[in-house]
Amino acid sequence: MHALPGIEGVSLRPLASHPDERGELTEVLRLAWLGEAPPPRQWNYVRSGANVLRGVHVHVTHWDFLVVLEGEAWIGLVDLRRGSKTCGNARIVRMSGDAKALLTVCPGVAHGFYFPRGGVFTYGLSHYWDPENDEFGCRWDDPALGLAWGLERAPLLSPRDESAGSLAEMLTALEGKAGWCGSG
Amino acid sequence: MHALPGIEGVSLRPLASHPDERGELTEVLRLAWLGEAPPPRQWNYVRSGANVLRGVHVHVTHWDFLVVLEGEAWIGLVDLRRGSKTCGNARIVRMSGDAKALLTVCPGVAHGFYFPRGGVFTYGLSHYWDPENDEFGCRWDDPALGLAWGLERAPLLSPRDESAGSLAEMLTALEGKAGWCGSG
Repeated sequence: MHALPGIEGVSLRPLASHPDERGELTEVLRLAWLGEAPPPRQWNYVRSGANVLRGVHVHVTHWDFLVVLEGEAWIGLVDLRRGSKTCGNARIVRMSGDAKALLTVCPGVAHGFYFPRGGVFTYGLSHYWDPENDEFGCRWDDPALGLAWGLERAPLLSPRDESAGSLAEMLTALEGKAGWCGSG
Repeated sequence: MHALPGIEGVSLRPLASHPDERGELTEVLRLAWLGEAPPPRQWNYVRSGANVLRGVHVHVTHWDFLVVLEGEAWIGLVDLRRGSKTCGNARIVRMSGDAKALLTVCPGVAHGFYFPRGGVFTYGLSHYWDPENDEFGCRWDDPALGLAWGLERAPLLSPRDESAGSLAEMLTALEGKAGWCGSG
């Protein structure tokens, strides 16, 4: 149901917006839409300027439920789960506030977000945000990821994302981690 | 904990925003913050133009968990629960995207939203949105509500809100409703 071709466990569900004279209303998420995914326990709101890139990150435990509310985001996705039929697959999905959709990302699928002209998104997390223990990162432009970002200039990164290591180093760090689906 | 003075069962929790060079991140809701309130099952996103007013509405079943993300909203709140210590109390809370906060509203507390210059909010609902069965409305400017909106011009309403009846009529409609906390 709304599965994203090429990466098992990731779905992209188009959302219906209801515009009227006053503005607009969009149902962003209903638990009944989530299938096997655990329900969100937390919600975050994120604003990004133009040419900002967040990631690439991967989680051991939590699922993400993400909606771009304004502007545009290119979401890079890479399946790192050894047991997955789509392991190693990478693709970039373009999301926009003008045609809203709910993106569901399971643990073990690495993701990065690029904002060509800035944007706003909200996301639910199935477990509390825990960047120390449940977020691993690597360089967004490691060719081993297979993500063809096609950027014409260096994006703005956080110091943490800027100094991140390679995909291979990230996978090594994940190997010993309880619950890591890549080690199964 | 973060109780809103004057209306029992309503809380207003200030949220910490984390700005950096890239933009901003705000944790909007964690289930652990909700206390006795049931967890959200659904999330909606709403954009409103300047001088729009939504409401006044009251729910029999669902709680609302609301955050203003951008712009400003004046939230009118009226306690209609017969068994409540603050029954009959009314107040207007100003919320802004510049100082985000999580407003939790229990069933039986009527609410309306006014957007002086437009704004965006997101809200969680503890039960699926069901405007036919779980949303009752009355005129936003019924003096019996006790809400001193102080508007200088007529606000833009939906046809439904425009043609809504009095508070007394709404309370009569609610009387027969299973679960209505005003009838206890």
